[in-house]
Amino acid sequence: MSYPRPQFGAYAPIAARNRGADGPPHATPEGVPVKASYTALDVSGLEHLDYAAGIPPYLRGPYATMYTGRPWTIRQYAGFSTAAASNAFYRRALASGQRGISVAFDLATHRGYDSDHPRVTGDVGKAGVAIDTVEDMKVLFEGIPLDDVSVSMTMNGAVIPVMAFFLVAAQEQGVPQHLLRGTIQNDILKEFLVRNTYIYPPGASMRIAGDVMVYCARQMPRFNSVSVSGYHMHEAGAPADLELAYTLGNGLAYLRLGASLGLDIDRLAPRVSFFFGVGMHMLMEAAKLRAARVLWARLVANLGAKDPKSMALRTHCQTSGYSLAAQAPHNNITRTTVEALAATLGHTQSLHTNALDEALALPSQSAARVALNTQLFLQHETDITRSIDPLAGSFVVESLTDGLACRAWDHLQEIESLGGMMAAIRQGIPKMRIEEAAARKQARLDSGQDVLVGVNRYILDDEPSFALLEVDSQVVRAQQVERLEAVRRRRDEARVKKALARVTHAASTKGASILAAAVEAAHARATLGEVSSALERVFGRFEASYNTISGIYAAHPAMKDEIERVLSLSDKFAELHGRRPRILVAKMGQDGHDRGARLVASSFADLGFDVDVGALFQTPAEVARQAIESDVHVLGISTMAGAHDTLIPALMETLHIRGASGILVVVGGIIPPRDSPLLEAAGVASIFGPGTRVSTAAKEVLQLLLERDETPAN
Amino acid sequence: MSYPRPQFGAYAPIAARNRGADGPPHATPEGVPVKASYTALDVSGLEHLDYAAGIPPYLRGPYATMYTGRPWTIRQYAGFSTAAASNAFYRRALASGQRGISVAFDLATHRGYDSDHPRVTGDVGKAGVAIDTVEDMKVLFEGIPLDDVSVSMTMNGAVIPVMAFFLVAAQEQGVPQHLLRGTIQNDILKEFLVRNTYIYPPGASMRIAGDVMVYCARQMPRFNSVSVSGYHMHEAGAPADLELAYTLGNGLAYLRLGASLGLDIDRLAPRVSFFFGVGMHMLMEAAKLRAARVLWARLVANLGAKDPKSMALRTHCQTSGYSLAAQAPHNNITRTTVEALAATLGHTQSLHTNALDEALALPSQSAARVALNTQLFLQHETDITRSIDPLAGSFVVESLTDGLACRAWDHLQEIESLGGMMAAIRQGIPKMRIEEAAARKQARLDSGQDVLVGVNRYILDDEPSFALLEVDSQVVRAQQVERLEAVRRRRDEARVKKALARVTHAASTKGASILAAAVEAAHARATLGEVSSALERVFGRFEASYNTISGIYAAHPAMKDEIERVLSLSDKFAELHGRRPRILVAKMGQDGHDRGARLVASSFADLGFDVDVGALFQTPAEVARQAIESDVHVLGISTMAGAHDTLIPALMETLHIRGASGILVVVGGIIPPRDSPLLEAAGVASIFGPGTRVSTAAKEVLQLLLERDETPAN
Repeated sequence: MSYPRPQFGAYAPIAARNRGADGPPHATPEGVPVKASYTALDVSGLEHLDYAAGIPPYLRGPYATMYTGRPWTIRQYAGFSTAAASNAFYRRALASGQRGISVAFDLATHRGYDSDHPRVTGDVGKAGVAIDTVEDMKVLFEGIPLDDVSVSMTMNGAVIPVMAFFLVAAQEQGVPQHLLRGTIQNDILKEFLVRNTYIYPPGASMRIAGDVMVYCARQMPRFNSVSVSGYHMHEAGAPADLELAYTLGNGLAYLRLGASLGLDIDRLAPRVSFFFGVGMHMLMEAAKLRAARVLWARLVANLGAKDPKSMALRTHCQTSGYSLAAQAPHNNITRTTVEALAATLGHTQSLHTNALDEALALPSQSAARVALNTQLFLQHETDITRSIDPLAGSFVVESLTDGLACRAWDHLQEIESLGGMMAAIRQGIPKMRIEEAAARKQARLDSGQDVLVGVNRYILDDEPSFALLEVDSQVVRAQQVERLEAVRRRRDEARVKKALARVTHAASTKGASILAAAVEAAHARATLGEVSSALERVFGRFEASYNTISGIYAAHPAMKDEIERVLSLSDKFAELHGRRPRILVAKMGQDGHDRGARLVASSFADLGFDVDVGALFQTPAEVARQAIESDVHVLGISTMAGAHDTLIPALMETLHIRGASGILVVVGGIIPPRDSPLLEAAGVASIFGPGTRVSTAAKEVLQLLLERDETPAN
Repeated sequence: MSYPRPQFGAYAPIAARNRGADGPPHATPEGVPVKASYTALDVSGLEHLDYAAGIPPYLRGPYATMYTGRPWTIRQYAGFSTAAASNAFYRRALASGQRGISVAFDLATHRGYDSDHPRVTGDVGKAGVAIDTVEDMKVLFEGIPLDDVSVSMTMNGAVIPVMAFFLVAAQEQGVPQHLLRGTIQNDILKEFLVRNTYIYPPGASMRIAGDVMVYCARQMPRFNSVSVSGYHMHEAGAPADLELAYTLGNGLAYLRLGASLGLDIDRLAPRVSFFFGVGMHMLMEAAKLRAARVLWARLVANLGAKDPKSMALRTHCQTSGYSLAAQAPHNNITRTTVEALAATLGHTQSLHTNALDEALALPSQSAARVALNTQLFLQHETDITRSIDPLAGSFVVESLTDGLACRAWDHLQEIESLGGMMAAIRQGIPKMRIEEAAARKQARLDSGQDVLVGVNRYILDDEPSFALLEVDSQVVRAQQVERLEAVRRRRDEARVKKALARVTHAASTKGASILAAAVEAAHARATLGEVSSALERVFGRFEASYNTISGIYAAHPAMKDEIERVLSLSDKFAELHGRRPRILVAKMGQDGHDRGARLVASSFADLGFDVDVGALFQTPAEVARQAIESDVHVLGISTMAGAHDTLIPALMETLHIRGASGILVVVGGIIPPRDSPLLEAAGVASIFGPGTRVSTAAKEVLQLLLERDETPAN
């Protein structure tokens, strides 16, 4: 080329490189310090720079051509109330450029309950599609050729009946098992770690996970039998290093499980895929995906894999729901775009982009379309797919990749020293680490050290109103119950009974295939709840007990003054009442998203409250009883999955009937603005949306309590 | 660090690096081929990798600490109708996190007309703020301390009166000239190239530009006296290589002009800043800014600069307006985010992010807020500001940077061989190159080779409706005229007359300071139109004459079938009428954005039309006369600046009165949907919004003409 490169050698001595940029490096939650200035010296000697895509350790991507051959798969996770509504959505999405579909089930389905079960009155169809029988599954995929379209199903607890329904639906569509493409999440370990949509105890759950892996390995060669998911750790507050280490640690546990079941690693590993969350730290998040591939290649090689393909980490990503704000929701498009860029610059294989309204409600159709389009733009209008791994060689990103890999490797070694991931989870170590990180993050946000634009800085008073999706759970539930009853009327009860007995038998027989038995039950039109119960007879239902962390939130230096202000209020209350203010932090229904509840519990303890934490999955009556028996002053309900409209009025009614209206009830979580009047009318004293400072909420609760003291009528 | 790096040397031989990625490189509009795979080999030996920020040639940024010290300046370009409305907007923006303001003037002001001038009936307050006198300027900056807030003013044609008003307003606010910070665009060369808001002929215009540069160099040491602008070339369709080369070429011309006026280069160069557009090709656009800095350092050094600071290119950027779509406008947030990332990864010094509704109208307040927030997110929530030049070392980006620098250097050499930028512009070469590139781009879009999501692919029928800003030019104009008359009533006419005579005298006197004379006139309350006219007496008003390019649009291979279909229709028309369909493509009012008009003109010629192109800045009566005299079948009006609501009804009325209602009138450009009924009622046959395929528009025009032939009533 003809351009005479400038000769400025005299001005750019290496010694001057870091001029003005020699302050202390930026401390990150990951523990990977970020310097202001990186140069070629920082990466000199890094073997990274010589790696190629498509070759172990796959730093630059699992495939040789990456997006230059074909861009990532757009795969939006969605489920809308009923199978029919979801089916219509999938077909529209496939027509507008999406490839493959990803099913979100409602929480009743996740937890193995039929829609007519009394524990799920508020949950049916709320956070995804309700599936009770094969008939629902058939409607879900009507007109969608399952030998052509790949299907991802986020299912862990009730994986047996859901897989069985899927297989029977495909079969009745005329598609043989071996042609099915897609992914079943089947990652039960992270449920115990963070997500809580388990059903059975850990040991039994791993038995089931292995059962599905073996079945898939034998019958479904094109289907991923595990999707090892860091996403939920990310959402629970894990920084990139913890998400990375614990996800790979879980993956390792599944490979070992497979080996113990006689599966050849070179047959199993290529069917294990991953799923990461991606947040706003674009460079760090891209580095996370790159580091994940290098470490996984190493781990799989260590297990004795011979086939290079076994060592390739393939992953789905989803932009962070936690990073979205309820305030000024249009700005969530910006957040999601940056996160989508991080995921794709990190070379994910497929991607879900969140909709702008997801901090307020489940996505509306128009918001879902904007989210889908974000990916289409990146693929079609930018130049990021033209070359493999555009960040390769970047001094900063290669350094972060190496730094993160080192940090995660340390965590993995700790897990090994604890006896592997199952043992570590039983000891509560990974969960504790994540909760501590979440509490530190909350303290950074609440103190304003970390900025959320429009939430803790640049706040405007006037928020534009916004059309949100509304799901009437009662209507959906009535429809589902009707469909259930129709299936039950038409089926051969004796055959169902026999088939369910075989499921129970398989569960209690070592080496038997539970899924194979469940497929027969599905053929016979056994329901999801029935299959789950057939397993529960052997395995029981798991009830978690957790410890609460403490001292992390209050320890943040920038929070000092604020903490003192709140403590003086709680001290004042304690003086007046002879005991500290006592709060029960509770969740109701099948919503297991407990990041917020646990954070509030540990932070309120730091702020001078006596804190009780309710068990997960309680009914309104159970929560009311615990509040009354514990004689709490405050009942704090956390709700994330939309069931508040049914469950909270029921709770208030129970408290009233039991003469406990004196308990102050406050609610936090995802509450569309339109529901506030309903909750307030029911007697809720305060509603705290996403973005509320925990200390502010505590202050408000204390002030409400103290005001009551001053009101003579009390 | 403790993590044992995987040893996979055997799997990653250098020879295998490009495995599967050895297809032909991707051809880009820039002529810089993009390969699928880049490795360390591609950048080995590139001196680039050793450059540091803050040191010539400034590849990695003009300052040593870049965003790690302070992020880029958020500077949103805005002007709303009246000085009072704009002032309120600026104050809100400063309160919500913006630093510095950037004034958009209306087109009447740009072209040197007072608001009561008969040629600007449709333009007053439409595309920015109307400024007629010092009194308007004082209102504009009321409550904004001009010694603290930096002010950028996009003004070129009427730079003398606007600078004079600004100086007097500051003085009357108590701020002395030498403390003023900010930028005056004062880049007249690109007006002749693409933007068309010139007033005087090129030679006189350069005299004025130099006058301002000298004044600033002597009196305003903190003020940038030229902002060399590639943005408008970008918007006119210039790929990155042309934008880069011609912008730097213009910058060089200003430095030479300064030298010819006796300004020391080390005094002038640090006060010359730049302004680039940034499109969706994130990596290429970031490379463009990096290449710009290297080349500029070289050019300035060649001119004999001694101070390293002189060689540092500092730039403002704006996301591309051209890349926005009228369809599904929320998706423009995504486009703008990607472009903002490109600008900031390329290390711009300040940035304007476009609002989501700008393909439909001027930004509404809520859309402007979302745009501002996009930058706040990038600064506060991502990690891109933590390290200097995160793309440094990237194999892809360093290669693109070098490739673009080489291409641009070739173009610069061509400009030099033509005798420099002024000579090249007089010969029409740069304009032709840009128009050819724009026609090729249009052909790629119209053929679907380039995808615009929601526009030429993934199109949905139902578009959500949208609240847009509405400016009633007649109301604004009436207010302005009243203010003007009030100023005229109060002032000392004799003093004004004398001051204006001195302005005219300065213009005709070599070496005299025109701006100094204009400041005196401003003190005396001379109006913008009067100062402009005082100069026009010496310099005259410029009327451009351009050649039309041809054959580029039709030559695109993928357009072949479509072109033939349209040609068969125009042939049919020609057979029926004995001559080819004839169209006058015209613009009215002070709107000089002629990319669309010129593109339509050249493409319609390719599609079998006889095409007349009207002069710029015509009144409705002038356009009607030309259409009638040329006996055209079709009159195509292009409107980009919002004056259509006044000017098009006036045009239709004139045609009607003159018995020429038989001429088919079609309109293209930025027309808010709410205005369609008005235009249709006035008799407009068809409206073509942004994103319309040119061939589709041609087909529709031909079909309308042929239908008329078939209608007996005709």
